[in-house]
Amino acid sequence: MMAPTQSVDNTVLLPAEVLSEVVERTLHAAGADPDAAAIVAESLVASDLCGVSSHGVVRVPDYLRAIRLGRIDPTARPTVEFDGGAVVRLAGNNSFGQIAAREMAAVAADRAEQHGVGLVMLAGVEHVGRLGEWVERAAAAGCVALAWCNCGDSYGNVVPYGGEQTRLGTNPMAYAVPLAGGEPLVADFSTSVVSEGKVRVLRQLGLTVPDGWLLDAAGRPTNDPGALYNGGALLPAGGHKGFALGLLVEILGGVMAGAGCVSLGEAPGNGLVFLAIDTTSAPTAFGERVAEVVSSIRSSGSGVQLPGDPEQLARAQGRLNGVTIARKAWTELLEAAAELGLQVPPTQTNQGDTYVV
Amino acid sequence: MMAPTQSVDNTVLLPAEVLSEVVERTLHAAGADPDAAAIVAESLVASDLCGVSSHGVVRVPDYLRAIRLGRIDPTARPTVEFDGGAVVRLAGNNSFGQIAAREMAAVAADRAEQHGVGLVMLAGVEHVGRLGEWVERAAAAGCVALAWCNCGDSYGNVVPYGGEQTRLGTNPMAYAVPLAGGEPLVADFSTSVVSEGKVRVLRQLGLTVPDGWLLDAAGRPTNDPGALYNGGALLPAGGHKGFALGLLVEILGGVMAGAGCVSLGEAPGNGLVFLAIDTTSAPTAFGERVAEVVSSIRSSGSGVQLPGDPEQLARAQGRLNGVTIARKAWTELLEAAAELGLQVPPTQTNQGDTYVV
Repeated sequence: MMAPTQSVDNTVLLPAEVLSEVVERTLHAAGADPDAAAIVAESLVASDLCGVSSHGVVRVPDYLRAIRLGRIDPTARPTVEFDGGAVVRLAGNNSFGQIAAREMAAVAADRAEQHGVGLVMLAGVEHVGRLGEWVERAAAAGCVALAWCNCGDSYGNVVPYGGEQTRLGTNPMAYAVPLAGGEPLVADFSTSVVSEGKVRVLRQLGLTVPDGWLLDAAGRPTNDPGALYNGGALLPAGGHKGFALGLLVEILGGVMAGAGCVSLGEAPGNGLVFLAIDTTSAPTAFGERVAEVVSSIRSSGSGVQLPGDPEQLARAQGRLNGVTIARKAWTELLEAAAELGLQVPPTQTNQGDTYVV
Repeated sequence: MMAPTQSVDNTVLLPAEVLSEVVERTLHAAGADPDAAAIVAESLVASDLCGVSSHGVVRVPDYLRAIRLGRIDPTARPTVEFDGGAVVRLAGNNSFGQIAAREMAAVAADRAEQHGVGLVMLAGVEHVGRLGEWVERAAAAGCVALAWCNCGDSYGNVVPYGGEQTRLGTNPMAYAVPLAGGEPLVADFSTSVVSEGKVRVLRQLGLTVPDGWLLDAAGRPTNDPGALYNGGALLPAGGHKGFALGLLVEILGGVMAGAGCVSLGEAPGNGLVFLAIDTTSAPTAFGERVAEVVSSIRSSGSGVQLPGDPEQLARAQGRLNGVTIARKAWTELLEAAAELGLQVPPTQTNQGDTYVV
């Protein structure tokens, strides 16, 4: 296959297969077994493909560092630590988060098929990637799926409602619902007002953040994105409601799954509780009814945006045109590959914008 | 027992037992069997006691009307429609919502004890009262509990994110978490920016609503609380995040539990999905760890407010001083009791503020 890359500002546009191959070979060279390298590459590129670049191939250098530090064991697999039938607790064993999370979703869907409901807990992993991917997988298996994931370094970057000092991570949750005649409905959002990445982008662009996003180190509202990196804090989404959700996520991932608690100064990696509900327990044809609900929601106005709409649009475009990633992410990926002794595509020309696979 | 009532503006302060007895006798006179009357009265007064008067005895006239219209059968009980072990679907059979919801919480906790997780669906009821009560009950039985409840009249009063016309109810969710050495953590909130009741209060007081609460009938932002009652709409909490949650609640209560969908012009009453997770599945002492998390959250600032704090404070005050309800609610309750031929306490004096039981 031959394909040109295009330069759009500081991004590059690549065929998904090329990007995936570079990531896969790089991870393999770093010690990942072939299956693991393929699965992680697929997940990372899928995140870029649906526009969630914060969880895409930009993470590869971090993963390589984690492998060197022993925080990721690139040949490890999750194991079952507790099996109660409908409830399973998985030990991540420092495997790639994507490997463990894929197993989590599969086990939950399987237990839901057997018992009507499956609840899987996962601890002992670093970054699991895009949470939406795992609920979407369970939805593809015919389940309503919900996931809660605690995260963050010690004491996090989100302030409790009414508080002054950070205690929580951005603690995302996600859900997916299968529907007739279309892709599953997928929602995936942090319980903070925005994710940290959005503040970082505004800082890089020299812009201010809107009211209601941040407190500074003294606990006062601020519009300066830099405040977050100088002892400041993200606010919870929707005030006490987002805080209540973020705290639930901390308890589920940190205590129930046992990953550890950001609020207690621990650094848990990602701790997850994943719920799958078999939709055949519903009294009527589930997927058809959900499709009707979605159709009614869409009719509420021309500007309505359903959960997952931005990702579906980006994915459709990406399948046609290729994957857009930051030029810097691409350069760092190629450098990482070169450091591991790989000669990977693309062979950059002196224009820097075309290559031959 | 003898107790004075006190007049504070347009409220009355009553001993909880007196209020409960009036409600219980009224419901009994309206056809409720003694058990049902006692349970519903206990729940309504408990809501008033913790300051959630919107779900308290103010509802009694509505319930009496629903009984007359046949929408509540005051001697009915929920029945099991589907039993999959870890998953149970209950038919409400038009029983009092509180009767059915109490059963739902008990069954979920029981199944969680047996299977590690219990998921109960409930449809076929009107108003279940304060959602927090049901998760709190399951937490008292040693479970983490989550509940999602769809509600609203045809097409509801909440606009989808980016939409112009209402499609959802205020669709609350609730959770409760047991902890060592204290009452469970209980969160209970609508997925709209506020509940309809708060807009109603501001309208009654002749005040405006803050930015970000309402759209008018033309889909434009407004600060006029009256707009909600003239074709306007409540906005979702936290923009697309609250909308995603509200839509999930609609799908769980409306389709999964089968209560019917506000978004499809149906009037489902309350449709619920209730999840209970046995905390003994956690790898460490669950309640102790949660208590540590709560303690850390409290240390984040003097103004921090945890989920359930306002209710716990109101309940503590109520136990000392009595229950505060609107004078109008009290008057209507006494009128309803009198219409049913009851001579209930208090015997009002010509001051209108003291009585003898």
